[in-house]
Amino acid sequence: MVGPHATGPVFDDAFRAQLLDLFRWRRDVRRFRSEPVPAGLLDRLLDVASLAPSVGLSEPWRLVTVDDPARRAAVRASFEACNTQALAAQTFASQTAAYARLKLAGLDEAPCQFAVFAEPDPEQGRGLGRATMPETTAYSAVMAVHTLWLAARALGLGLGWVSILDPAAVAAALEVPPGWSLVGYFCLGYPQSEGEAPELERLGWERRRPAVVIRR
Amino acid sequence: MVGPHATGPVFDDAFRAQLLDLFRWRRDVRRFRSEPVPAGLLDRLLDVASLAPSVGLSEPWRLVTVDDPARRAAVRASFEACNTQALAAQTFASQTAAYARLKLAGLDEAPCQFAVFAEPDPEQGRGLGRATMPETTAYSAVMAVHTLWLAARALGLGLGWVSILDPAAVAAALEVPPGWSLVGYFCLGYPQSEGEAPELERLGWERRRPAVVIRR
Repeated sequence: MVGPHATGPVFDDAFRAQLLDLFRWRRDVRRFRSEPVPAGLLDRLLDVASLAPSVGLSEPWRLVTVDDPARRAAVRASFEACNTQALAAQTFASQTAAYARLKLAGLDEAPCQFAVFAEPDPEQGRGLGRATMPETTAYSAVMAVHTLWLAARALGLGLGWVSILDPAAVAAALEVPPGWSLVGYFCLGYPQSEGEAPELERLGWERRRPAVVIRR
Repeated sequence: MVGPHATGPVFDDAFRAQLLDLFRWRRDVRRFRSEPVPAGLLDRLLDVASLAPSVGLSEPWRLVTVDDPARRAAVRASFEACNTQALAAQTFASQTAAYARLKLAGLDEAPCQFAVFAEPDPEQGRGLGRATMPETTAYSAVMAVHTLWLAARALGLGLGWVSILDPAAVAAALEVPPGWSLVGYFCLGYPQSEGEAPELERLGWERRRPAVVIRR
């Protein structure tokens, strides 16, 4: 047990430069190579994810690995239905064509797939910190995802976040306990290519812009 | 411009070990030393935060630095009111005493303070990825916070996430554009101490537990 006055690790310029590279080169990956992820690696990454901060130390993330082909097919069907609706909802013809060109998930190829849910009202943490902002349980689970994402990228793995889904359909497909709230569905594997620019930027859908910062 | 087939940085075991240390030693800090944060550092960290992933490349984070003493006092008043309510809501006497012993924010001491909001319906990104899960805009802002948090810790700085607040009161105190949704209010500075165990664990409020993982 390390006490409160222990001296933590000291990070140097070289580490910080690599960390910045990690942030810059992390990508949302939708094109995976077919090779499998080493056995046990996803479990180790789920352990790393659990180092994330959480409101009141409630650790409300609920992690679901998905290997069963029928369950994967059900998730894929939800994606197809939602993506078809999203395509139909594009306002302009040019935007419809641009949307249709995008590849928005790697559900067919990704060797590893998992879902992350949040327990909205966890006993753990005794409610601390979430009385006025109950969404902080979901936010904690998001930080677990982001932790895993960075750890995966440091191993040369790519993660894709799939949100074009009906949360109720995914919860049903995965038969999770009632009340769990879907945060996202994730594809993990080795990426076909690497890039510093987001795929949506390279394909002309959107571009990065300076952050909106106001002073008060 | 780096193309899609560029080879990204290669991270080695030494980097991955330090990254794991960063995850392990990142803390939610509520006790700050009085020394100021170097000028310009918060702005650089806000730039780093903007490297976070975002749904549809919508970059919906809205960043508000808070220096005005009256505005800081208004945020502090909201924290005090909400924390008093939370204390009164503790169910058992033992829990009330335990809650009262906690220090849950560093609003008096933290030299740097900022708020993060999400724009729930950003034009940027053209709606991609959020039709069925609109909460992904807030989730994107959460990942910006987490990115900043890790970058700050790598510089020896501590961040504290304050969620015991009335979001409407904070939005009013900071006079942000209508519609922006509060993600959190943050204290930043040099921590009084470092620890591998969360303060809530050291003070006996809660302890870390193995992650809940189910297989499907």
